Amino acid sequence: MTSRSRVRLSPQERREQLLDLGVSMFAHRNVEELSIDEVAEAAGVSRGLLYHYFPGLQGFRDAVVRRVAEEFVVATAASDAPDPMERLSTTVVNYVDFVDANHDAYLSLVRAAAGGDPGMKKVYDDARSALAERILDLGVLDLVPDSEAVRLLVRGWQALAEEIVLAWKAPGGPDDRNAVSKADVVAMLTDSIAAILLTATPAE
Amino acid sequence: MTSRSRVRLSPQERREQLLDLGVSMFAHRNVEELSIDEVAEAAGVSRGLLYHYFPGLQGFRDAVVRRVAEEFVVATAASDAPDPMERLSTTVVNYVDFVDANHDAYLSLVRAAAGGDPGMKKVYDDARSALAERILDLGVLDLVPDSEAVRLLVRGWQALAEEIVLAWKAPGGPDDRNAVSKADVVAMLTDSIAAILLTATPAE
Repeated sequence: MTSRSRVRLSPQERREQLLDLGVSMFAHRNVEELSIDEVAEAAGVSRGLLYHYFPGLQGFRDAVVRRVAEEFVVATAASDAPDPMERLSTTVVNYVDFVDANHDAYLSLVRAAAGGDPGMKKVYDDARSALAERILDLGVLDLVPDSEAVRLLVRGWQALAEEIVLAWKAPGGPDDRNAVSKADVVAMLTDSIAAILLTATPAE
Repeated sequence: MTSRSRVRLSPQERREQLLDLGVSMFAHRNVEELSIDEVAEAAGVSRGLLYHYFPGLQGFRDAVVRRVAEEFVVATAASDAPDPMERLSTTVVNYVDFVDANHDAYLSLVRAAAGGDPGMKKVYDDARSALAERILDLGVLDLVPDSEAVRLLVRGWQALAEEIVLAWKAPGGPDDRNAVSKADVVAMLTDSIAAILLTATPAE
């Protein structure tokens, strides 16, 4: 396995390389705008080879969106700090960094999911659920007892985080105008998860 | 204007009647499933008359989605209670009641907006912005000073509220299983707006 030359990629490696290229291309473009020809040209491979790895343009796009979702889950991995709030806060920092660096790719993932394609919706829902589980395991369940209400609040917080980060990064938004810093966004999200969780504990 | 008989509707009234019918039909069905024939039959009018009022099926659907958005804004009107938190809480109760009673219609509005149709996205964004402005005017700006961060947090809270209410009402969700009551959802949303706003005030 390790004696393989760098030029002769295995089919699996070639596929990975094409996906990585797709992700980087669509970090700054909408997934709908990607064409097989452009990707083939950028990768220095033939159209035919691309079709050998992916079942058509839609299949390639789906695989790229899936890859973005995977990278999103990996990027939001947390530290193993002993303090639950510190672990949550690390994940928030990683989340904001990821969306900051991959804004268009992330937006494409969100839009692909919302666009009604059941396959894309599943990719997105799976990524969101993976992050929700991680947030619960990471610290939430060390802070408050598990309940249906807490799980709803974590889902709600994820929607809040997505909305705030995308609105912050939108063209003409607060980031464009230097009106709200990345550190402010991280603080908002970290503070709100803590604040929201407290609302799950009945007052009486 | 007042001597008009109940049977002979003015063109404006007839149009309103058709829209109301569309809204009630699509309170329990997806907007994509509505057909002009079904609406015409339910209204007891001809297909031709429907086409007289609306430019085709897409035009009718758009008008129905717009109507849902208007009803959403009207339904979330607030009391004029002197306490800002009480005014916010009334709007939250009205919001949850509206989504509870019009779940499918509301979901169709959200989906139509997310589906990439720019016209539908605008209808949805306008309704959301109207509600954001109301939330700000209603109480938020009596509780915390206005800032870009507060406006981002209000947007984020709206996304949280939408996610929580739709997840709560989803088939097989906590409402279906009687796992979380409507009062619990209202309390979660009211408490979280208060909690989130506190995070906008710098700690130092």
